Amino acid sequence: MAAVLLKNGRVVTADSDAVCDILIEGETIAAIGRNLPANGAEVIDCTGKVVVPGGIDPHVHLEMPFMGTFSSDTYETGTRAALHGGTTTVIDFILQKQGNSLRAAFEEWSGRATGNAVGDYSFHMAVTDFNPGTKEEIKEIIAEGITSFKTFMAYKGALMIDDAQMVGLMQEVKRHGGLVTAHATNGDMIDTLIAQHRAQGKLTPLYHYLSQPEVTEAEASGRFADIANYTGVKAYIIHLTCEGALNQVRRATERNQRVLVETCIQYLVLDASLYEDEANGAKVVMSPPLREKKDQATLWAGINQGLVNVVGTDHCPFMWEQKLMGKDDFSKIPNGHPAVEHRMELLFSEGVHQGKISLQKFVEVTSTNAAKIFGMFPRKGTISIGADADLVVIDPAKKHRISADTHHMNCDYSAYEGWELTGKIETVLLRGKVAVDAGETKVSRGYGQFIKRGPTNF
Amino acid sequence: MAAVLLKNGRVVTADSDAVCDILIEGETIAAIGRNLPANGAEVIDCTGKVVVPGGIDPHVHLEMPFMGTFSSDTYETGTRAALHGGTTTVIDFILQKQGNSLRAAFEEWSGRATGNAVGDYSFHMAVTDFNPGTKEEIKEIIAEGITSFKTFMAYKGALMIDDAQMVGLMQEVKRHGGLVTAHATNGDMIDTLIAQHRAQGKLTPLYHYLSQPEVTEAEASGRFADIANYTGVKAYIIHLTCEGALNQVRRATERNQRVLVETCIQYLVLDASLYEDEANGAKVVMSPPLREKKDQATLWAGINQGLVNVVGTDHCPFMWEQKLMGKDDFSKIPNGHPAVEHRMELLFSEGVHQGKISLQKFVEVTSTNAAKIFGMFPRKGTISIGADADLVVIDPAKKHRISADTHHMNCDYSAYEGWELTGKIETVLLRGKVAVDAGETKVSRGYGQFIKRGPTNF
Amino acid sequence: MAAVLLKNGRVVTADSDAVCDILIEGETIAAIGRNLPANGAEVIDCTGKVVVPGGIDPHVHLEMPFMGTFSSDTYETGTRAALHGGTTTVIDFILQKQGNSLRAAFEEWSGRATGNAVGDYSFHMAVTDFNPGTKEEIKEIIAEGITSFKTFMAYKGALMIDDAQMVGLMQEVKRHGGLVTAHATNGDMIDTLIAQHRAQGKLTPLYHYLSQPEVTEAEASGRFADIANYTGVKAYIIHLTCEGALNQVRRATERNQRVLVETCIQYLVLDASLYEDEANGAKVVMSPPLREKKDQATLWAGINQGLVNVVGTDHCPFMWEQKLMGKDDFSKIPNGHPAVEHRMELLFSEGVHQGKISLQKFVEVTSTNAAKIFGMFPRKGTISIGADADLVVIDPAKKHRISADTHHMNCDYSAYEGWELTGKIETVLLRGKVAVDAGETKVSRGYGQFIKRGPTNF
Amino acid sequence: MAAVLLKNGRVVTADSDAVCDILIEGETIAAIGRNLPANGAEVIDCTGKVVVPGGIDPHVHLEMPFMGTFSSDTYETGTRAALHGGTTTVIDFILQKQGNSLRAAFEEWSGRATGNAVGDYSFHMAVTDFNPGTKEEIKEIIAEGITSFKTFMAYKGALMIDDAQMVGLMQEVKRHGGLVTAHATNGDMIDTLIAQHRAQGKLTPLYHYLSQPEVTEAEASGRFADIANYTGVKAYIIHLTCEGALNQVRRATERNQRVLVETCIQYLVLDASLYEDEANGAKVVMSPPLREKKDQATLWAGINQGLVNVVGTDHCPFMWEQKLMGKDDFSKIPNGHPAVEHRMELLFSEGVHQGKISLQKFVEVTSTNAAKIFGMFPRKGTISIGADADLVVIDPAKKHRISADTHHMNCDYSAYEGWELTGKIETVLLRGKVAVDAGETKVSRGYGQFIKRGPTNF
Repeated sequence: MAAVLLKNGRVVTADSDAVCDILIEGETIAAIGRNLPANGAEVIDCTGKVVVPGGIDPHVHLEMPFMGTFSSDTYETGTRAALHGGTTTVIDFILQKQGNSLRAAFEEWSGRATGNAVGDYSFHMAVTDFNPGTKEEIKEIIAEGITSFKTFMAYKGALMIDDAQMVGLMQEVKRHGGLVTAHATNGDMIDTLIAQHRAQGKLTPLYHYLSQPEVTEAEASGRFADIANYTGVKAYIIHLTCEGALNQVRRATERNQRVLVETCIQYLVLDASLYEDEANGAKVVMSPPLREKKDQATLWAGINQGLVNVVGTDHCPFMWEQKLMGKDDFSKIPNGHPAVEHRMELLFSEGVHQGKISLQKFVEVTSTNAAKIFGMFPRKGTISIGADADLVVIDPAKKHRISADTHHMNCDYSAYEGWELTGKIETVLLRGKVAVDAGETKVSRGYGQFIKRGPTNF
Repeated sequence: MAAVLLKNGRVVTADSDAVCDILIEGETIAAIGRNLPANGAEVIDCTGKVVVPGGIDPHVHLEMPFMGTFSSDTYETGTRAALHGGTTTVIDFILQKQGNSLRAAFEEWSGRATGNAVGDYSFHMAVTDFNPGTKEEIKEIIAEGITSFKTFMAYKGALMIDDAQMVGLMQEVKRHGGLVTAHATNGDMIDTLIAQHRAQGKLTPLYHYLSQPEVTEAEASGRFADIANYTGVKAYIIHLTCEGALNQVRRATERNQRVLVETCIQYLVLDASLYEDEANGAKVVMSPPLREKKDQATLWAGINQGLVNVVGTDHCPFMWEQKLMGKDDFSKIPNGHPAVEHRMELLFSEGVHQGKISLQKFVEVTSTNAAKIFGMFPRKGTISIGADADLVVIDPAKKHRISADTHHMNCDYSAYEGWELTGKIETVLLRGKVAVDAGETKVSRGYGQFIKRGPTNF
Repeated sequence: MAAVLLKNGRVVTADSDAVCDILIEGETIAAIGRNLPANGAEVIDCTGKVVVPGGIDPHVHLEMPFMGTFSSDTYETGTRAALHGGTTTVIDFILQKQGNSLRAAFEEWSGRATGNAVGDYSFHMAVTDFNPGTKEEIKEIIAEGITSFKTFMAYKGALMIDDAQMVGLMQEVKRHGGLVTAHATNGDMIDTLIAQHRAQGKLTPLYHYLSQPEVTEAEASGRFADIANYTGVKAYIIHLTCEGALNQVRRATERNQRVLVETCIQYLVLDASLYEDEANGAKVVMSPPLREKKDQATLWAGINQGLVNVVGTDHCPFMWEQKLMGKDDFSKIPNGHPAVEHRMELLFSEGVHQGKISLQKFVEVTSTNAAKIFGMFPRKGTISIGADADLVVIDPAKKHRISADTHHMNCDYSAYEGWELTGKIETVLLRGKVAVDAGETKVSRGYGQFIKRGPTNF
Repeated sequence: MAAVLLKNGRVVTADSDAVCDILIEGETIAAIGRNLPANGAEVIDCTGKVVVPGGIDPHVHLEMPFMGTFSSDTYETGTRAALHGGTTTVIDFILQKQGNSLRAAFEEWSGRATGNAVGDYSFHMAVTDFNPGTKEEIKEIIAEGITSFKTFMAYKGALMIDDAQMVGLMQEVKRHGGLVTAHATNGDMIDTLIAQHRAQGKLTPLYHYLSQPEVTEAEASGRFADIANYTGVKAYIIHLTCEGALNQVRRATERNQRVLVETCIQYLVLDASLYEDEANGAKVVMSPPLREKKDQATLWAGINQGLVNVVGTDHCPFMWEQKLMGKDDFSKIPNGHPAVEHRMELLFSEGVHQGKISLQKFVEVTSTNAAKIFGMFPRKGTISIGADADLVVIDPAKKHRISADTHHMNCDYSAYEGWELTGKIETVLLRGKVAVDAGETKVSRGYGQFIKRGPTNF
């Protein structure tokens, strides 16, 4: 059995911080200690480096079907780029097609992923049509290891379910021990504002932003929490961006409810002023949109308060040519931006290096919490005996620049072009194998595995 | 160097859960792994057992001077009892005498503890008289490793500081990177209600409870949070008991503030109906008093929401004879009850076994969070390489009963007399030595060390 | 010009309280004073009586079309019964038929009312289908004197509009200075719960209640407030029943919003325990349903806080035979109960007589506030010079009993059967004519007029 | 009996609005009507004018003892200036001297007022030392017609009571049906910040402002509400200035409490930027200080929400020479500014004329609510039969300028110097006599009477 020995790293998890060695045997961690003997293992010198658990990004969209085309990262390019950024596991969203079964969607997505992923992956199941048929399928989808169900409160006619379906879905998922997540924005309000802006000839990217004001997210977040509280299901809000929405979660604590919250890296470090750049605004057209400085402050505080549990990306890249579909009309710009590769380095630099969060908190929100919430703990999300040897070696002081010229995502621009970060990911191991080292990919298409997940432990 | 090897336990920390071995060399953990070789180490078979980090109880009062006598546990008996209950480190409160220096109080408390403690200990400094002189001492007290400063918002004339002193203390402590904690109840209101009840001849233990209604704690908790927010100091509320008080903390999150919260085990499992028992009510006379069932629900929810960070005890035992000082007048009953020995087993049984909290959460609130908050992490509060080998081996299924006949605290009654718990602490190690095994104490008076603490990392 | 002189009454309005005379000339009040000369006027001795402004019930449903039949009070019987209870003006709801114009509905309702009403009346316009066509009609409906627009957030497929329509309607109504009101309950959630209860064979009236839990109203009230705040329109919640919903309004005050609130008399004095009576529960099947004692306490407090502005009835009677349509299935019970006649006496007895509210507050919530909010002030809602002489003479000490045998509503039962009230309405004047005296109706069908309304002044 | 007839005014009260005549006989209103015969009465033509009830300013300090001198308006000059501004009744604060009786203070204040006041007046009793002796006096002070008791939560050592005294006072006042008001700021915090600023040589007026940050008022307002809620007493916060404080009142509504609120005219129209003017900042040094624009928005919203009930002035003028006592040290500037004369015209111009509030609301907050809250209704606060004929005739369109050269207050500057207002008070009647007309005073020193007050009716 192949063995690897990481020597003398500063090994940091959500609840530890020690200079020591990590011995890997096969795919898992066999020992952690001081002065562990190599015994023939491949030795990686981690002196002066920080070693953290492999990142988990629970919010990506790879090869997502869209208007006859797809988001520009495949399972191959997307998970490879993720690995370069220290993210060893991603969770993608299967999108049920309204009228069709969950099973059919599962098979379609599995078909795209199987044999192509470089890094590990799992799926959430987005239920876009909850009916007696799909109700029956919930239990078996959970049996497949897909224990989290996404709902859209926006995109009426395509993805959105109404509150009646929401109640029913939550009840059924709760019965089987699963989790319900939501894209919590008021689709009706947004659709109206989009239509009004278009009717008024207000077509630049700025109007993408102005069509999704804070209230649309705050309202829906409160509603989602209310319904979840009534049904008793475990609830998780994806890509929460703003003060109004987080305050709904905070208020829900007063009735003894716990609503889990994910934000995404861009909401912590970018803001809505970018939409005023008519030429480049499309690069950051996503939903919900970027918000204000006061919302960034809210999100950083929320992380330290323990109320924002996860930092994901909503990675959903489109090539500039695809973005240009909306050059004359913001509503036709494909939503999303490339981020999966930079999540951990951005958070390390802007969060840990800037002193906003501790290293332990960094590990929590990039890995451990997601593993616990999404039923992969303790296999993923920590550095402990028997856990998958998913490890990230960071040079904490090394400065580097982000550029579309050098990133590995299949996207010809970056919203972070030219940003200088402190802290560089040097080496990444996935299930015991060096997957990335010194900028080179060491594992191939197909190495990534589908991770079956269990119930939340959080 | 003496070595101990714990074999095959289910090792649980706040972020891990693995069946493995732990190798101790000297006082610290040297390796964690599967099938670690004994190499002459003393082997403890932990098969079928849960192994967690040594508990930290950040709220005890040992030999606390009181009306010419002292709380009934000495540093010896108190820390020994703590060890029997899996608590390897306690933090006691130095009480400055108004008019005297902090240094004098430090020396007095050190004098009582040094050479007497069986388990490890540290101190908070209760500043009861903040003035230009004590202001100067803050920095040096922190240099002594005492980084947390307690304030009393009650007990006017003896311990209470006013809001002017509070502002000044918070500013000074913040300047030096410390933490301010509060006994957050409105002393003025309570004093008035006590006086009124006494004047009306209402003297039974029930009136202890009725003299400290929920509002007295909610008000002071809000006020403490307000002042802390203004000064920017890190703030921690000790022995929070009720919905009204926690809701103040929850509301403070909306202004991006984080207030840390400790509750105590008794507030989770006992309630105010005990005060109706005139004969025995004195056993649970403490301040704040026990509360209602709805408050218990709030506290359990608060733990899972991540807003109640620590479960302590406010251990402050008095012998029944001492309690009888107040047999004719509740206001003369010495406040406090014996609890340090049962905190972890009670929380394991009522929390983990009953399914209210996860094992990881159990470790967080009994150990890890206190270590981080009070600047002992990663030396204490976790199981990791180089950390102190403070370990607790629990038989998770074993049933046992609490009784004053068998407990180790120097107190001739128990509020939990006859309670049957599931989960028994079998073996406890402190800095690598077996301190307790199968009910026997294996270390002696003086083994316990003073732990110097640093700044909060939480 | 006919003249009437009310002598020596205790004349009470929202801001006055004086023993004096009121001289009426024609339809309006000509003078208020002491010892006004009769000069041939008809004199009504009001010594020992309380004289208040004629009541306004802004929430009634007369001859409302329903499942091929109609609510059992016509404009004749309904407004006559209202007069007997001191309510001189009612506001009914025109229900647009989805697909048809607002104008068509206006004409249908006008057709039923014109020439038939005994008391004065106006209409709200319920917009059940907001589209480019009905958008155009808003301005002209306001020009007709109908300045308030109702929305249903429940009854999908029949009356409900979605949030997209809500935004559009609010914007258009705001543009023209009108008011938007809402039946604020989450129709989707309720529909689901009804369907579930029916599927489980839970068909008694109790399940009507359990299908509309507090959250369904709290959620929708918050959502309505959110959208109104975004659009800036004046907003009014009809028949608010519970703590959860009022708390949404209270929280909205923190963003400087004002949401106007109506409750109905039954929510103040009846509670949900009535649904446990399987035989009679149908009598109080209405939507929202009756709530709990704690909700009653909230509503009384809300009145005194100035946050519950109006007490209406949602009067919508059905004969027992009609109620029996749902004897085997709560979902088929026509919703509503007869109340318009008893609103003022119930509130006088349970509110003023019991000491819960002042006489001034009684006038505010039964008359003045509705007049101001719905644009009839100062013509209606007060006792002042030039105002319509709508006056109610109450014997404040007289006891009497409610009974279906003696009430004037066209309904063969009463939810208040046998209740003894203190305070009896003796004489009622409408526009200067004695309309009711000593239990006899003195005006005829057709006396009632349509009241054109202007913008809110509140 | 002398009679006066006001002809053809637009008579506006909180609940009426009618063009009509008002007949006064002696001191009270005898009739209100159209075309009332003069019968020898003095006729005042009010055509085109607005007639409102005489204003009540419940917050003034006349001849207030201070550092060996007095606030610069006597009862004569102060009430005369008030009359010129349409305020016919003022309520001053008796300040108990700590250690002395309430009776002694009452006599001292009465001595200054009796025979000197031009307009009507009453007193609040400020209890600065609640003890068994003063407890006994509460009932008799109420019997004297002084039903409201003020507390200071600031000015320790001079005026402040602690929370113990607060509880006791509230209980005693509640027992006798009175009202407790509070200067709700945290005196301890403020004293600390003042001392710190002084120690740092920060002595300009700006530091007056920075020594009383919003939290000092928000905290104390919440604490006052909490204690009041516990005791059940009716509570009223004087001179509330800011969002933080009003939000405490708003949140208290969620527990069904009602806390009454007074703001002062300056907080609605002036802001803290004035403190940056080092030369003139002293003119607006008052406590609490002026706040920010966002606080003004909160207060205007609060008025319309019905949560800010009264607009007073805290009139407490000092001559510029007196203000200069603090030219080198903000803490020595006498607190207060001259305002009693301009309250109504400022609110009319900035509120009614600017469209922020209705005429009815104007009357409510300048007169009716104060009359109800402070037990003078219906004698004062409205225009109704038998009520005191306190009337203000306003030319609503007339523009005029404020200047210290022309105002009647005994103060040689004005914070509103040069402001142009729309709406001029032309004639003022007090108890049936023309007190002010066309800028001339028509009544003499001694005309003003002490008004005995009863319990709150609100």
